[in-house]
Amino acid sequence: MFVNYPNGKRFIPRTKETEARVKNIKNNSFSNRGMTLEEDLNESNEYYRNIKMAVIHKKPTPVQIVQVDYPNRSAAVIKEAYFKLASTTDYNGVYKGKYIDFEAKETQNETSIPLKNFHQHQIDHMRDCLAQGGICFVILRFTRFDQVYLLEAKHLLTFWDRMTNGGRKSITKEEIEQFGHYIPLGFQPRIDYISIIDMLIFS
Amino acid sequence: MFVNYPNGKRFIPRTKETEARVKNIKNNSFSNRGMTLEEDLNESNEYYRNIKMAVIHKKPTPVQIVQVDYPNRSAAVIKEAYFKLASTTDYNGVYKGKYIDFEAKETQNETSIPLKNFHQHQIDHMRDCLAQGGICFVILRFTRFDQVYLLEAKHLLTFWDRMTNGGRKSITKEEIEQFGHYIPLGFQPRIDYISIIDMLIFS
Repeated sequence: MFVNYPNGKRFIPRTKETEARVKNIKNNSFSNRGMTLEEDLNESNEYYRNIKMAVIHKKPTPVQIVQVDYPNRSAAVIKEAYFKLASTTDYNGVYKGKYIDFEAKETQNETSIPLKNFHQHQIDHMRDCLAQGGICFVILRFTRFDQVYLLEAKHLLTFWDRMTNGGRKSITKEEIEQFGHYIPLGFQPRIDYISIIDMLIFS
Repeated sequence: MFVNYPNGKRFIPRTKETEARVKNIKNNSFSNRGMTLEEDLNESNEYYRNIKMAVIHKKPTPVQIVQVDYPNRSAAVIKEAYFKLASTTDYNGVYKGKYIDFEAKETQNETSIPLKNFHQHQIDHMRDCLAQGGICFVILRFTRFDQVYLLEAKHLLTFWDRMTNGGRKSITKEEIEQFGHYIPLGFQPRIDYISIIDMLIFS
């Protein structure tokens, strides 16, 4: 199962120029800093780790390695590899002893999140994690509005099942507003999803 | 931080011949089937997932991607990439709502496990997971004897601290026998480490 790249996006290695741009944008305001949802979540997770609040990491991108060169002992170079479809969600870790598991998706769409952003393996994985008592959810960003929501996996599964039963192939923004939890953007952490988990699970 | 490959081992893509060899060996006996510890653990985790007992996965090998070619829309080819040192342990997941996190190492050594098999990032990660109430351990195999042990992270950390305080750079087999838990090899699952976790945590 080889794919172009997760979400069909092209891979663009980050250069010093883009690093500088991101840094400049970061100094201005909380919103619209031009960072991807992944970058914001990585920063948030780093913050949680630094203050010893939670240990949550993004999993490495799964790659099928086909050919490796060994020009010398200390430098193996991968010369041929392919992106693989992930069999799980992208983020997991531990908070207050509990297993945390989530996927993050952003959309340019203004009115809904297309369910094709998820694939069957990830849905199955979320179902299995929930059955094991894990805390499982998705973080969704409407990039045009810079709005981020946490939607518990149980709701995502309901919308997924609606689709497989012939219903609509997306979750409307109204549904996400109704069933999800809005996460206001902050400075540190940028996306404070743990505060939502605290409210939902530990209060 | 680029490395040759985790543990300095060369990457050898699995061919149809080795697949067949592994399959043949598998049909013979529980022990010495010529499978790596990683293969045995992947099989065990798949078994746990299939019977809906636990959801535990190996994380993908972290790779720094430098160049990607797009010969056509549906086939991105990674043309240059490097192995990165993992910032966490290799395996994690959920069992009975609890966060499970572990690393697996095998050694040809007959008398001890060298601590250079672990690196500082992994040790820090285990310390942080323990502080969050995660269930954290290592699975160690002495390949010459085909003996597998589960050693709780708290003990590994003690031996690590002994080393950083000037003590020995390995854990002796006697110490592992004393502080660890022997896991008899089985058929399904091959390495039933969850039964040890059950005994240690849930009984």
